[in-house]
Amino acid sequence: VKRDLVTLDDLSDREIESLFSLADEYLAALGDLRRPPRVTGALQLAAGRILSTLFYESSTRTRLSFEAAMLRLGGQILASADPGKTSAAKGESIADTVRVIESYADLLVLRHPAEGAARLAAEFTETPLINAGDGGHEHPTQTLCDLYTLRRANKALRGLSVLLCGDLKNGRTTHSLAYALARFGAHIIPLPGSGLGLPDHVCRRLETDYHCTPVPREEHREMLNADTPLDVVYVTPTAPHQLSLLTSTGATDDGEAERRIQLARRTLANIDVCYVTRLQRERLEGDLAPAAYPIVDKKFLSERRYKNAQVMHPLPRVDELAYDLDEDPRGVYFKQAAYGVPVRMALIAGLLRLRPEVLSAVPPPARYEVYKPSKRVRCTNPRCVTNLASEQRYSTQKFWVIDSYTIRCAYCDVERRPRARIARVEPSAAEWPAEPGEKPVEAGG
Amino acid sequence: VKRDLVTLDDLSDREIESLFSLADEYLAALGDLRRPPRVTGALQLAAGRILSTLFYESSTRTRLSFEAAMLRLGGQILASADPGKTSAAKGESIADTVRVIESYADLLVLRHPAEGAARLAAEFTETPLINAGDGGHEHPTQTLCDLYTLRRANKALRGLSVLLCGDLKNGRTTHSLAYALARFGAHIIPLPGSGLGLPDHVCRRLETDYHCTPVPREEHREMLNADTPLDVVYVTPTAPHQLSLLTSTGATDDGEAERRIQLARRTLANIDVCYVTRLQRERLEGDLAPAAYPIVDKKFLSERRYKNAQVMHPLPRVDELAYDLDEDPRGVYFKQAAYGVPVRMALIAGLLRLRPEVLSAVPPPARYEVYKPSKRVRCTNPRCVTNLASEQRYSTQKFWVIDSYTIRCAYCDVERRPRARIARVEPSAAEWPAEPGEKPVEAGG
Amino acid sequence: VKRDLVTLDDLSDREIESLFSLADEYLAALGDLRRPPRVTGALQLAAGRILSTLFYESSTRTRLSFEAAMLRLGGQILASADPGKTSAAKGESIADTVRVIESYADLLVLRHPAEGAARLAAEFTETPLINAGDGGHEHPTQTLCDLYTLRRANKALRGLSVLLCGDLKNGRTTHSLAYALARFGAHIIPLPGSGLGLPDHVCRRLETDYHCTPVPREEHREMLNADTPLDVVYVTPTAPHQLSLLTSTGATDDGEAERRIQLARRTLANIDVCYVTRLQRERLEGDLAPAAYPIVDKKFLSERRYKNAQVMHPLPRVDELAYDLDEDPRGVYFKQAAYGVPVRMALIAGLLRLRPEVLSAVPPPARYEVYKPSKRVRCTNPRCVTNLASEQRYSTQKFWVIDSYTIRCAYCDVERRPRARIARVEPSAAEWPAEPGEKPVEAGG
Repeated sequence: VKRDLVTLDDLSDREIESLFSLADEYLAALGDLRRPPRVTGALQLAAGRILSTLFYESSTRTRLSFEAAMLRLGGQILASADPGKTSAAKGESIADTVRVIESYADLLVLRHPAEGAARLAAEFTETPLINAGDGGHEHPTQTLCDLYTLRRANKALRGLSVLLCGDLKNGRTTHSLAYALARFGAHIIPLPGSGLGLPDHVCRRLETDYHCTPVPREEHREMLNADTPLDVVYVTPTAPHQLSLLTSTGATDDGEAERRIQLARRTLANIDVCYVTRLQRERLEGDLAPAAYPIVDKKFLSERRYKNAQVMHPLPRVDELAYDLDEDPRGVYFKQAAYGVPVRMALIAGLLRLRPEVLSAVPPPARYEVYKPSKRVRCTNPRCVTNLASEQRYSTQKFWVIDSYTIRCAYCDVERRPRARIARVEPSAAEWPAEPGEKPVEAGG
Repeated sequence: VKRDLVTLDDLSDREIESLFSLADEYLAALGDLRRPPRVTGALQLAAGRILSTLFYESSTRTRLSFEAAMLRLGGQILASADPGKTSAAKGESIADTVRVIESYADLLVLRHPAEGAARLAAEFTETPLINAGDGGHEHPTQTLCDLYTLRRANKALRGLSVLLCGDLKNGRTTHSLAYALARFGAHIIPLPGSGLGLPDHVCRRLETDYHCTPVPREEHREMLNADTPLDVVYVTPTAPHQLSLLTSTGATDDGEAERRIQLARRTLANIDVCYVTRLQRERLEGDLAPAAYPIVDKKFLSERRYKNAQVMHPLPRVDELAYDLDEDPRGVYFKQAAYGVPVRMALIAGLLRLRPEVLSAVPPPARYEVYKPSKRVRCTNPRCVTNLASEQRYSTQKFWVIDSYTIRCAYCDVERRPRARIARVEPSAAEWPAEPGEKPVEAGG
Repeated sequence: VKRDLVTLDDLSDREIESLFSLADEYLAALGDLRRPPRVTGALQLAAGRILSTLFYESSTRTRLSFEAAMLRLGGQILASADPGKTSAAKGESIADTVRVIESYADLLVLRHPAEGAARLAAEFTETPLINAGDGGHEHPTQTLCDLYTLRRANKALRGLSVLLCGDLKNGRTTHSLAYALARFGAHIIPLPGSGLGLPDHVCRRLETDYHCTPVPREEHREMLNADTPLDVVYVTPTAPHQLSLLTSTGATDDGEAERRIQLARRTLANIDVCYVTRLQRERLEGDLAPAAYPIVDKKFLSERRYKNAQVMHPLPRVDELAYDLDEDPRGVYFKQAAYGVPVRMALIAGLLRLRPEVLSAVPPPARYEVYKPSKRVRCTNPRCVTNLASEQRYSTQKFWVIDSYTIRCAYCDVERRPRARIARVEPSAAEWPAEPGEKPVEAGG
């Protein structure tokens, strides 16, 4: 069985911890490598192995980070910065491309504009595959680096209060990070640009999958200045995880509701991490810039609650993160970028089984049951890989059953609700909403 | 003396066989490399050697295949995916570019849109050069991989019946393969899309160079259903090769004509290989799609004659080869793609003299005498490299003398017929057809 | 302390000599590598080290030359042929980009269209950086290769007479070479295309920095045919260097003026090097080709003064250098290109401290005092990196004090003259010329 990294759910908690220990080891080795006279030789662990970067969208930074990691391990790289210009331009399907490229390399790294492309590609190859970004969906190695940065600076992720600033709507980085924070019990304080809040489907998934519940502003307003635009805080109860959805208004137990309000207050009083993101201009529909966008600079951070906040940013930054923080000890964004190499080295060593102790033979069990419709059921997300013309030539229909009335595309994670129960009996054609004009569940559901 | 691979004629039969034996060896080594725990170390044969891919046209698949082969041998690569944007944009000639790049690398791999570019480049460098496709002319390593695939699945190429489907007009792959099949005594059954048959010059060369003769439909029609569009079969008589051109109508010996008809019937009764190709949309003149184009799918292959046919395709496919064959044991196209690596490894090891037993010191003798005109004689092919503005600055005129009234450009292989005999006495200016408006021999001759 | 190569002034005379000795060693090793059977193994000096080529403009030839050098040393490469398409398109500053990329590599090679970009980048990273061309400013490794070619063919640079042909206005290669020639005591004879002479600021710097003085045509006209367009010769007096500016008209000592005229005559009588450059069409403002442009061919070189001239060209050539010189022993341009690899190998080995004897721990002392204005003073060069929008977010103001009334941008080397003395007391705002419409000093000063 081969292992992939398409979303962070492909790794168990223990595996993530093992990867981070190995990253610590590589980080030290890299430090030695740079100190003249060089005290360690080159790592030769991956000698003779080839990693292929298959980037249907340009992303120099992400691509170089993977390539640097492979080279530091002693392996080799096959770079294709722009396969979209060639085979895809000739109309080739992703399924075909990976079945060819897999004979050239031992590990594939895929960046693709379609949501769910990485999962689909992984299913068609026996070579391990890493998702380096699939449209607005996920970017799990960025999230791994973010978590690693948090872990090096903090004793634990549980209970950490993390401010997410900027474009929370279009940034896959932010979505992946939000899931990971919730998974490890951190609290999330969104501070979006106007109109750029976390999408409904992300909020819903925070609750459904991770029991991370929103506590709206009115419940904790005394903590805030009148002009603070924070109006919700997502808290993850310590333990045990609740099995029902706990929204603030739906709480059946007054004591529990009060506990969550207290948690929200504590979360706001002392921000541990301030995660800044740039406006994803290239994903804006229409060309309108948002009316307001948070700028993080020395002045912003002068409030007492930010006294010990680590400032992170996935980079590149534009104007949302001021240069006056470059010398501030709270600014850890360049360190965060540098951690990309040891973290990816650990991941590569794990997936190639060069360090077989890091990853189990099999992935963690799926969270939900799978549903493979016996007739064609289109994913309602127009940006889903299964809706690309090139991928219509073969059948790719697979959903997770979230509850009796909700399925989630196994590729792009967008949900859909037929009008009838799914469970054991499949809905009949009449019970699926009409396809043309049908809205994805986050918009219409 | 250095060796090149510009067309398959640059290799003797014995050398091709040696390359394939070495490819067998590498194929086994690659299999071991992928099996965990890895039982063989990295090959280090090409350590310290550099292969440079010089691609004036993008072709991710071909480029990666060469690069993977070099890396698997322990060598290194210099990739230039788009030199056309830089030095060529500044007006540099191919002759100059290779004389610079040769100082960076030990082996050059050239892809260029002009026909004959690879031969011209090879003449200007002392570094071995591989043609990775020169316009519509040749793509010999694709042909080597095709032959290797055939050889692994069949006892011999001699007598094999090969159906060529699709775009036989624009595909250099198909032309190169047709020559190779004829050379090794296989029989060819063209099944083109409408208007996309083998060009006249290819048919003529099949006869001239390889004595592969067409047997038209009326001679063997009883074999076919009324609606089968196959109307000619090219057969290669076993031995000895005839020295005169044997066309079906020109056969002087009734016994021989009958023998060829029997051969055509046997060829049609049992197809060994079905070689499918996509429509070369990017080389279509005008924008008209063909009225009909053969689709190979399970239904197509249900006729009894295809019972044991191996289905090959140079990939990428579009719609001409159905996904329903992916699981069919007759579909060997992904295997064919994977063979690209060991075959290219063997070729690289041969050209770099890392395995000196594979290639002789000198190339096979030329088939025809050379003719270097004492005055300027333009090749009539507008896509010939010698007609590029950048290459007009130096003299590049060289032809093969096919017969007393036919010369063939030594770069692009397009033929031309002066009005007078060539032989020893050169035709005078008046005896060459006027240059402007002059047609290539395959159209007007 | 790390070392960079941004301009040739970053290397002392002794360091350049050490680099060339090491290049000799590598040149011999490369020769052995290519001779079959290979007598030397691969160099492994840079094993485990990574060089990253960061090219904001395409330049296949330059990029491959660096990559070949690193691979020949046993190191690895991270290529980003087009970072301008990704991070820069997202608005990232150069300062940010290098602070990220430095965590991927041990050595950075930067090509950027903005003048001064390399100096700025070098200041923001602790990783050694090589300038591979920054707009029209400098291209020091090309100059190193030119000097190395001169040194291999001549006993000394001092006293050499070098004809510079072609586009002397737009070619950074020519400017860098002119400075280097002057620095090492060679004499310079400009032969520009019409309107493409050495810019004023280059001539001024030849005098200011290197005491290389022009001797105009009337002083030595008897040497020339009436139609020779050479109208000035730059001579560098042997020793000791003059501390005042010696222009021909300003010479205070008649004996010295006479000596310089004699020097100009000797320089013209016997040309040692003919350095040809192509028209930099891509940097022409407007689209007008020059009225006349020198063509160097066998006929041009038939004058007796060129009898022993080595013909050099940075390549690619277009029409300014005829193919009929390819076989002429005076044509050394392909050799010059080939020297790029051993010279860059030596430089890499030096900067990475793999051969610690080559470069001192600290760079040569600056020629002038530094001036960091306490208020914002814009560089007047619109192509200067400090005037890019992306770089305005942080402060980058640094000038050299050339004399009491002249400062020179420490990034792009363009000079500016406030109306008041600089020295210890800073000019007040009123004393700087108004910024909009202000002309760079070479045009208006």
